[in-house]
Amino acid sequence: MIKQPEFSLDPWALRETGLNMDRLAQAESVFAQSNGHLGWRGVLDEGEPNGLPGSYLNGVYEDRPLPYAERSYGRPESGQTVINVTNGKLIRLLVDDEPFDVRYGSLKSHERVLDFRSGLLTRRAEWVSPAGGAVRVTSQRLVSFSHRAIAAIHYEVEPLDGAVQVSVQSGLLANEQLPAADGDPRATAVLERPLLAEYEDHDGNAVVMVHRTQRSGLRIGAAMDHVIDGPDGLRTDTRAKPDAAMVTAATMLAPGERLRLVKFVGYGWSSTRSLEAVRDQVLAALSSARQARWPGLVAEQRAYLDDFWDRSDVEVDGDPEIQQAVRFALFHVLQAAARGEDRPIPAKGLTGPGYDGHAFWDTEVFMLPMLTLTAPEAVASALRWRHSTLPAAIDRAAQLGLSGAAFPWRTIAGQECSGYWPASLAAFHVNAGIADAVLRYVAATGDGDFGGGTGLDLLVHTARLWRSLGHHDGDGRFHIDGVTGPDEYSAIADDNVYTNLMAQRNLLGAASAAEQYPDRARELDVDSAEAAAWRDAATAMFIPYDDALGVHPQAAGFTGHQVWDFAATPADNYPLMMHYPYFDLYRKQVVKQADLVLAMQHRGEAFTAEQKARNFDYYEALTVRDSSLSAGTQAVIAAEVGELDLAFDYLAEAALMDLDDLEHNTRDGVHIASLAGMYVALIAGFAGVRYESGDIQFAPRLPDEMARLAFTIVLQGRRLRVEITRSSARYLLVEGEPLGIGHHGTPVTLKAGKPVVRPIPSVTPRPRASQPAGRTPERRRPDAAT
Amino acid sequence: MIKQPEFSLDPWALRETGLNMDRLAQAESVFAQSNGHLGWRGVLDEGEPNGLPGSYLNGVYEDRPLPYAERSYGRPESGQTVINVTNGKLIRLLVDDEPFDVRYGSLKSHERVLDFRSGLLTRRAEWVSPAGGAVRVTSQRLVSFSHRAIAAIHYEVEPLDGAVQVSVQSGLLANEQLPAADGDPRATAVLERPLLAEYEDHDGNAVVMVHRTQRSGLRIGAAMDHVIDGPDGLRTDTRAKPDAAMVTAATMLAPGERLRLVKFVGYGWSSTRSLEAVRDQVLAALSSARQARWPGLVAEQRAYLDDFWDRSDVEVDGDPEIQQAVRFALFHVLQAAARGEDRPIPAKGLTGPGYDGHAFWDTEVFMLPMLTLTAPEAVASALRWRHSTLPAAIDRAAQLGLSGAAFPWRTIAGQECSGYWPASLAAFHVNAGIADAVLRYVAATGDGDFGGGTGLDLLVHTARLWRSLGHHDGDGRFHIDGVTGPDEYSAIADDNVYTNLMAQRNLLGAASAAEQYPDRARELDVDSAEAAAWRDAATAMFIPYDDALGVHPQAAGFTGHQVWDFAATPADNYPLMMHYPYFDLYRKQVVKQADLVLAMQHRGEAFTAEQKARNFDYYEALTVRDSSLSAGTQAVIAAEVGELDLAFDYLAEAALMDLDDLEHNTRDGVHIASLAGMYVALIAGFAGVRYESGDIQFAPRLPDEMARLAFTIVLQGRRLRVEITRSSARYLLVEGEPLGIGHHGTPVTLKAGKPVVRPIPSVTPRPRASQPAGRTPERRRPDAAT
Repeated sequence: MIKQPEFSLDPWALRETGLNMDRLAQAESVFAQSNGHLGWRGVLDEGEPNGLPGSYLNGVYEDRPLPYAERSYGRPESGQTVINVTNGKLIRLLVDDEPFDVRYGSLKSHERVLDFRSGLLTRRAEWVSPAGGAVRVTSQRLVSFSHRAIAAIHYEVEPLDGAVQVSVQSGLLANEQLPAADGDPRATAVLERPLLAEYEDHDGNAVVMVHRTQRSGLRIGAAMDHVIDGPDGLRTDTRAKPDAAMVTAATMLAPGERLRLVKFVGYGWSSTRSLEAVRDQVLAALSSARQARWPGLVAEQRAYLDDFWDRSDVEVDGDPEIQQAVRFALFHVLQAAARGEDRPIPAKGLTGPGYDGHAFWDTEVFMLPMLTLTAPEAVASALRWRHSTLPAAIDRAAQLGLSGAAFPWRTIAGQECSGYWPASLAAFHVNAGIADAVLRYVAATGDGDFGGGTGLDLLVHTARLWRSLGHHDGDGRFHIDGVTGPDEYSAIADDNVYTNLMAQRNLLGAASAAEQYPDRARELDVDSAEAAAWRDAATAMFIPYDDALGVHPQAAGFTGHQVWDFAATPADNYPLMMHYPYFDLYRKQVVKQADLVLAMQHRGEAFTAEQKARNFDYYEALTVRDSSLSAGTQAVIAAEVGELDLAFDYLAEAALMDLDDLEHNTRDGVHIASLAGMYVALIAGFAGVRYESGDIQFAPRLPDEMARLAFTIVLQGRRLRVEITRSSARYLLVEGEPLGIGHHGTPVTLKAGKPVVRPIPSVTPRPRASQPAGRTPERRRPDAAT
Repeated sequence: MIKQPEFSLDPWALRETGLNMDRLAQAESVFAQSNGHLGWRGVLDEGEPNGLPGSYLNGVYEDRPLPYAERSYGRPESGQTVINVTNGKLIRLLVDDEPFDVRYGSLKSHERVLDFRSGLLTRRAEWVSPAGGAVRVTSQRLVSFSHRAIAAIHYEVEPLDGAVQVSVQSGLLANEQLPAADGDPRATAVLERPLLAEYEDHDGNAVVMVHRTQRSGLRIGAAMDHVIDGPDGLRTDTRAKPDAAMVTAATMLAPGERLRLVKFVGYGWSSTRSLEAVRDQVLAALSSARQARWPGLVAEQRAYLDDFWDRSDVEVDGDPEIQQAVRFALFHVLQAAARGEDRPIPAKGLTGPGYDGHAFWDTEVFMLPMLTLTAPEAVASALRWRHSTLPAAIDRAAQLGLSGAAFPWRTIAGQECSGYWPASLAAFHVNAGIADAVLRYVAATGDGDFGGGTGLDLLVHTARLWRSLGHHDGDGRFHIDGVTGPDEYSAIADDNVYTNLMAQRNLLGAASAAEQYPDRARELDVDSAEAAAWRDAATAMFIPYDDALGVHPQAAGFTGHQVWDFAATPADNYPLMMHYPYFDLYRKQVVKQADLVLAMQHRGEAFTAEQKARNFDYYEALTVRDSSLSAGTQAVIAAEVGELDLAFDYLAEAALMDLDDLEHNTRDGVHIASLAGMYVALIAGFAGVRYESGDIQFAPRLPDEMARLAFTIVLQGRRLRVEITRSSARYLLVEGEPLGIGHHGTPVTLKAGKPVVRPIPSVTPRPRASQPAGRTPERRRPDAAT
């Protein structure tokens, strides 16, 4: 159940039928709109009340010093923090000189709908002012997928009873006041007044402003223009100051009359271009949007999304909330990635300032696997962004005494921004995640230009890193010591299984790619000896195994450690990192998020089925899911080992992470990786899709709670439609050359337009795995469990 | 060779016959005077030029915030930093109105002598002013051992040629200007203007000032008084402002006439007492010093030191520099510890602001073993200080979810002040070091009052810590996981051998003491089950061993790690922590300072002779000695395994740490633990003294470079005189009941006044162990090596 009563169920929309003043910030995050370049949080048009105002441009940040109590070599001295850019959303309304503010007067009704097919955020409010003036306000907002520099608002006000005097003030506001940062280290550091005014001008109902950041030296332009329509006697007025501009339209509205305002807002930024160039770029974007007009922008938005849903939709029968949640997830991941165009995909997209606006390994390991099957062009774009940061990563590796490239744990522009090295610098697995994303993308799309260019560069530089990071022992085995794996409740351990297996794929993938693209490999100075050294290291990669317990230790020595005393841990002490020192978490068997289990998802072929089941049970008993990156992965492996009900519970947890605010930080933005992980839980979990090694395998199997799972994915440029029921799976290649797939291990050849139906083998039920006391996921259908 | 040409050899003094302007700060440290309560750096009387001015009161600090780039549970939010208190050393001189400043005019001669027997720092300078006025200045300075609140200066000026007009200005100066802090994390954070003026008054030639620190809330009083003697016509004048007071004596001096000024300076501080109380306490101390007069203070100082040397002196024949260095070491350790009176012994004593004035594990593990044999009352005092911080340590343990007490890694007042947890919080071995110091002290002195009181409290609370920190595995073995041992180039590893062995002694020692003092144990809620659990844990303590290599790994897994590439490490890249990330140091086999080798010194009985030799060789090849705490320990074990020449080289390195400024940070203060380690290298190394388990063993054996080693130590309150030559050892119990000792494993009973001579068995020479490339200690006698 979605726990917020103001949200209602709708398969194609997120609908809110009331306003909860305590959850404004969460609502702003889930109603946020973005195209991957420009993001607006779902703040009320009139700006107040608000939870956390925010307008973001992907890549726009300010530098801030990173302080340390004790200095040491190699720590980044400065970090990058996303900043709130000029607010173009603002439309204040005055009714008989009284400001429209939902906290005063009487709010008769209030509804917001984010429609996943139109991309529009629609708001309808009926309000009676303290003095008795009654109005209906209807606004629609979009951040354009087709015009990436543009957002637009259609705003309409009409009297409900008698005539009212209305003034609509449409604003452009820089350096707006933000709430003070709280003590949660996961929340962003708020930077106050980050924008220095450089320029402002206005002409008619249009205003343009240019600002500059102080330390990072970025220039940001913002402009607005308006089409205003109302009864005769409408007066308009434009005022502009360096940080605040206002276009006002005022009129008397008789019953039946309306004041309508269409607001076009354009944004642009650059680290190199002149004030004039940035200004003109913004004005040009604005001009093209005005030409398209509001109906044109709406139609283009719809067409873009129709195409997306056509190749990406997922239908889930049997649980309407999950159905809604998966489309919510697909929509938000698309919003985060669609028009990034060689910029990062931050952990919270452009929906909030959480995690300082940084991109993490989340991008390649959680988001790109979904996008590879649904929006592969966004994958290429995100990896081109990584590639653009290669110089910084090469410098970082050299600073650390390593070869190749060491990509940062968290960053906006490519420089390492983490101030706590055991969890960041040592988490080298981010590099293997990037290589894995390259290999997945190339396997799924066959994009040879990318594979022999950007892809090869990334593979070679990360392979070099691994070769210099690890070492062969006296017996020739290759070890990677003293690193941190995905689980942030462990650190600097030897031979983390996930890291070693992912590095192994990285090394082999680089060697193969160098063979496939010898000319480019030569340009990168890869010779046969180097490729052989990569293969040697990969072949000799040491994977620790605990023979006594019959499980893989997450890292060497892990299974010998004391097990965390879960029984003595009160429920209020989660997340554990807020109540226990890392010292104690690191040295005990307690897992924040899937680590060995993630290895089983991404390197499934390295484990036997029996190992998978035993490992899964072992780590289930240790994993507390204090990270939003865990439930989706646990769902995938739970499904694979046959624990379908448990998998469904984890799916639901991933699905409702933001809608139910399970981690209490959706206020800072939605969890893009968790949303993508929910998709992966469905596709890799219940459909059993594996495509990493080039051939695509399905092993579908539905839980009791799901009657039907149907979806479309894109492979090798061809759409593949899959429909799964409890008893059978139907595969339809929509177009193109024949495609070979596997169904529960049996090869199937698909020809365009010819559906193939295959039965689903039954599964032997196994005992449900146990989780730490109090950390069992909520049973999705408690009645079904009895 | 002492490398500073301005220092000359003298068995009983440190003598400087020139002024090296580049080494002023180093000289201020080695010439610093202290009584453990009050410390004055050896700054020139006239204040300038200086390297790093400093006057310190043990326990006086200011709080400063500890910043973090990312917050997490359990990190200290604030640290404590020693502050420069009111400067009472200042005596400016004007000759014909020109200030005496060695940088101007012509310095004809300049000599400073710190006499280890008198405790006086004497300075003689002949100077001709730019205008031609020639004077001789003679000053003597002491920080009184008998009057712990008092320092005093005897200052005399006389004309060398014609008559001169002289003015002597004696100052009391608060918040004096300090040089800006450099980038070395080992150097202190300089706090500017830490003292807030509360009170000042003057009467005749006496001035008193009271100040208060802003955050830590400590109140500090300083006062001066003078006895001035000169020809008729002498004029004196006193001026006082809140932060600066000056007593001036001016006169014309004809040839043969002298101006003589005796300055008494008194200090006091309190965290609780009123302004008036602190003021009156300082004035009372001053009054008593004035009564004693200068000759009285000098005589008492001499008497105190005569007694010290009588029970503590070490004679080394064959190397005059080592002879000088060992007395320099004994003198400085005494100065650091003598009158601390339940205050900490900081790592740099009161000789400089290095390490923020913090006390570390150095105190118990390096300083107290020396003091136990030479000044046991100082050991009891230092351990009473630890005991006084027990409440903070109990709180800290509770904060970390542990039982008992967790003493801080670095502190002044008892609270943890370290901002880098992998090297601090995880270095729990500090607790076992405290317990070890208790056990040593009680074994060496038989002080039952202490053993059943303060000692038992410390043993019980540290034993409880270990029991809660470790765990029994499935086979019953006891492990202590995820801790940091002494070697700071490794961190958070499992089963550090040093830690486990020291914890084992701690647990057993606590169980025995609880049995010995059942009443007090009951008050501490120790029951038989708890003591049994300590014994169980100790008995089951897991000590990892690498069967393949035949050595003990420093911690589990250590010997499987990659060996640091020493050949590729340029000499300029030492200390490594300044040029490589901790990430890389931690994961490779490279040792900053003795760790396993320290375990072999302190828990020798846990290793066979063969293991000791193999372990020593193995760790020699990995140990870079980037810490001043290493050479002394390596000397002890080198001597024990029969590498006497190498032991002598390490002895010399420890001996010259400060005199040659080997780590380039003597400017911040001398290394008290290294100085004590030098003593231990002689006594535990070449005399082979072991007394940890209650009976005292000798295994003397001298290197070629040493003709004779003679020393006195105090055991069970009795003085024992030992003289060792190449062929024999002579033991003389000076007084008291008979004493049983061991000589190379053979029991010997000593009766008072009856010397016993025993021959020294020959040693089989073994190949000299190798050190990392470029890290071999300097050969003390290169000619002797051929």
